[in-house]
Amino acid sequence: MSPQRGPSGHLIVIGGHEDRQCDKAILAHFVALSGGPDARIAVVTAATAHPEQTWDTYCKALGDLGASHCEHIHIETREDANRAELAAKLADADGIFLTGGDQKRLLANLGGTELDTAMHRAFKEHGACIAGTSAGASAMSGHMLAEGDGLDRPPTEGVSLRAGFGFLQRVVSDQHFSERHRLARLLTVVAQNPYLQGIGIDEDTALVIDRGLGVEVVGQGAVTIIDGRSMLSNAAEVDQCDTPELIDVRLHLLPAGKRYELGADDHANDHLPPPLLDFLKNVTKRNPAS
Amino acid sequence: MSPQRGPSGHLIVIGGHEDRQCDKAILAHFVALSGGPDARIAVVTAATAHPEQTWDTYCKALGDLGASHCEHIHIETREDANRAELAAKLADADGIFLTGGDQKRLLANLGGTELDTAMHRAFKEHGACIAGTSAGASAMSGHMLAEGDGLDRPPTEGVSLRAGFGFLQRVVSDQHFSERHRLARLLTVVAQNPYLQGIGIDEDTALVIDRGLGVEVVGQGAVTIIDGRSMLSNAAEVDQCDTPELIDVRLHLLPAGKRYELGADDHANDHLPPPLLDFLKNVTKRNPAS
Repeated sequence: MSPQRGPSGHLIVIGGHEDRQCDKAILAHFVALSGGPDARIAVVTAATAHPEQTWDTYCKALGDLGASHCEHIHIETREDANRAELAAKLADADGIFLTGGDQKRLLANLGGTELDTAMHRAFKEHGACIAGTSAGASAMSGHMLAEGDGLDRPPTEGVSLRAGFGFLQRVVSDQHFSERHRLARLLTVVAQNPYLQGIGIDEDTALVIDRGLGVEVVGQGAVTIIDGRSMLSNAAEVDQCDTPELIDVRLHLLPAGKRYELGADDHANDHLPPPLLDFLKNVTKRNPAS
Repeated sequence: MSPQRGPSGHLIVIGGHEDRQCDKAILAHFVALSGGPDARIAVVTAATAHPEQTWDTYCKALGDLGASHCEHIHIETREDANRAELAAKLADADGIFLTGGDQKRLLANLGGTELDTAMHRAFKEHGACIAGTSAGASAMSGHMLAEGDGLDRPPTEGVSLRAGFGFLQRVVSDQHFSERHRLARLLTVVAQNPYLQGIGIDEDTALVIDRGLGVEVVGQGAVTIIDGRSMLSNAAEVDQCDTPELIDVRLHLLPAGKRYELGADDHANDHLPPPLLDFLKNVTKRNPAS
């Protein structure tokens, strides 16, 4: 374990297409929060159909940022994902990066395996930094957005949830958010699942979560939060192909560069608007139930 | 004046591309609210560069719906728009339809002219039905969205407002809303102008406003309401090219088929969610200031 690594653990939820050529701001955050150049970093390419090419890209980008201990973890089967030596490497990693690809493939092969358990151990037991981009980002929450086109307006069909890794709970995140016009899709999910707060992350943008402490938006775009908990809706009653009525959905737009810190107690959080405070408390929660 | 015409006046704000071939549901509403087959209907094509073609389309569609007294009002200059005989026709119309095209052209030629005054007289003095589609719809509010691409995410530049006809106040409406992914653009306007409620109307969808009584959503899509009045934002402080922070924007989605009626007093409105009630009171207001 590198000495710089903090005990609290960080999550970096990336909206896809993060810069890997120029300033690499998001990847630089990942390296720093993993503990710096000496951090042991594992790049998990299980989501993609092009693991070698993806690994080459990240190996070079992370190397350019000074990370000197990067390792490629690729698995093709659940059998691979239960191999003890791979699990040991992940459990001992300072930083774990989940690449893009297909989140259904990622979970189908890793969900519930030794590698899954190892990632949770790395995060919870010694505060590793867990980052995911695109499909890898979708997979980080307990409820994972798995299907559905970037529909023009909310219907009540065409979107499905599956079980994700659960590093975050009571949220569902969608990537490439502005670029692929996914607000309608996220509204649909929130209308059907008001228990979940929707997080829409633009490309080359990341929501960096410092467990127990706060969040920061890094990169070029913004993070959109959709909160339907006080919403009134007829989503449960309308036909699958009809647009539901939604009244009083709350929307927050958090641009890159913004940082929101939680105080030690509620009094210290008086400066935070209540709807935002509630979101912060939720995503920075320690030891969420899986 | 046709005997069927109600005294209160109706506004029909259409999101563009309303059906003109099949059931023509929105145009049928326009004919009915203008007073039925005997209504004197004026089709104002001043927004479009193709007035004859546009007139032919509406003349046929409205004729198919039984409207037997349709007239083409086209003007090319402000001089035309001050002609007394045209103004008299508009002032006496039971229904006025503002076609699509370019809302800047429409206002540049009609704003403040005798024709403008005549439309307001028709609406206020004897309860004509005023409908607008696309550019014609944008022009109906006092603050008219005039520029700006369907930007991916809110910047604080690239969107401008001009002065519209003012049949609606304290709102700004945007058409082709879901189809052209215009939420970011409407959020930008609301962030910069929290005094205004944003109305996003899908294609082949209309917000039908029954002055003093209520609203109905007609057609195929939905109407999205963006309310930023209790929002916290740094829109006034950030650079023109930066994305502002927006906390606690309220969003409502009203699907086609929904009707919302105002009661005689506040007690009778207990069934309406307060944020929606507030919107209804605003858009159904009688005699808004111009």
